[in-house]
Amino acid sequence: MAPPGIGRSVEGHHAVAAAVAAGRVVRLLVELRRADGYADLIDAARASGAEVKVVDDVRPMADTTSPQGLVARCRPIPQVSLAVAAAKSDPAAVLVLDHVEDPRNVGAIARSAVAAGVRSMVFSGRRSAPLEGTAFKAAAGALEHMAVTEVSSIPAALEDLRKAGLWIVGLDGGGDQSLFGLEILTEPVAVVVGAEGGGLSRLVADRCDVLAAIPIDGDVESLNASVAAGLAVFEVARARRA
Amino acid sequence: MAPPGIGRSVEGHHAVAAAVAAGRVVRLLVELRRADGYADLIDAARASGAEVKVVDDVRPMADTTSPQGLVARCRPIPQVSLAVAAAKSDPAAVLVLDHVEDPRNVGAIARSAVAAGVRSMVFSGRRSAPLEGTAFKAAAGALEHMAVTEVSSIPAALEDLRKAGLWIVGLDGGGDQSLFGLEILTEPVAVVVGAEGGGLSRLVADRCDVLAAIPIDGDVESLNASVAAGLAVFEVARARRA
Repeated sequence: MAPPGIGRSVEGHHAVAAAVAAGRVVRLLVELRRADGYADLIDAARASGAEVKVVDDVRPMADTTSPQGLVARCRPIPQVSLAVAAAKSDPAAVLVLDHVEDPRNVGAIARSAVAAGVRSMVFSGRRSAPLEGTAFKAAAGALEHMAVTEVSSIPAALEDLRKAGLWIVGLDGGGDQSLFGLEILTEPVAVVVGAEGGGLSRLVADRCDVLAAIPIDGDVESLNASVAAGLAVFEVARARRA
Repeated sequence: MAPPGIGRSVEGHHAVAAAVAAGRVVRLLVELRRADGYADLIDAARASGAEVKVVDDVRPMADTTSPQGLVARCRPIPQVSLAVAAAKSDPAAVLVLDHVEDPRNVGAIARSAVAAGVRSMVFSGRRSAPLEGTAFKAAAGALEHMAVTEVSSIPAALEDLRKAGLWIVGLDGGGDQSLFGLEILTEPVAVVVGAEGGGLSRLVADRCDVLAAIPIDGDVESLNASVAAGLAVFEVARARRA
């Protein structure tokens, strides 16, 4: 069993640089042939108190096939309560992942969320992508800038968020309202994204106040999960800008 | 050297079903333990003239690690000229990939494009993701519903598209206009998406009439390429709906 905590292993240039900047890196492994190019990053890591070790090849320690010569072992990112997640922006905007399975999708979703100004993400530790090297690399540093909350039950978390005054908006291909122009997004909201393929689980869909669909042409059944989530967080940003 | 043509190998349930429906499948390999679940698809493949072979494991023939028990060998998808690509919708909407390298991104981009009603995609065969099993699986059938044009030079293709009356809009993080609300998207347009990491090449950026940026929060540098492209094609759809 992996030790508790999220983001204990981070790889790739942007992700490692962000982890160093967050002061989380305990040990930085750098490939010899790329060490010159990472001189500034190595200095920053040492200044933050990390041990730096130059090795021939970081890939045996990496989760992805392209760690870009960098793997960092880290203190886990701090997690926050649902109350803190909801208070991270005003009005609240919390992204909830209902068992997204591909860590690349989780990372890309975090990157889109931060880009769109959505800074809180709730996920379940069970039947979900682990938040480690692959997800952190895909997030390109974004996970260091989010309030992250791991919960054991997504339906229970949605109940808590509703009690905190948030509307629960589920992304669902069969939803009866369009995501685009959805007025409720100007209110405090939790936006729920379902698993690749399966979408929202029934228990989760039952707890949503609104099921919102992305209008799509009939020749495809659905969108990639990270694209759908990206459209959702930017729709939140658009609604609040308008 | 691979034989010429795109989409000679297709895998995964949705992608293979779409290739069968397109009448392209010459030979369908199905895993024995999953053959019962694919009975309808096997019937459709046979009816389309494909040879069906049941095997123990399709993975040795697959490009991805999860071909879902199906690999199809196919006639390549028909390619179209740039003139036909431009004429595919009115006003024209052509998506141009400037050396997107990850075939999963190419596939997800095609899926988003078709979902948003953008039915033409231009790409360069050099320094780009091959359009085979991995891209087709990520596209989940969408590539069967697009006009696809492989060119040897993206800058030259952009010149031809401009001569055909299209505005060239490049997605560029440093662009001076926002993608959101960009009025030119109601006109005939080619939207150019750059490579992961590097973005648009200089030669390509120089040929764009407009460089449009997706407004993002400063804590991330850029978006995943397929998310950025997804936002762009749905912005085209939004502009034309408005």
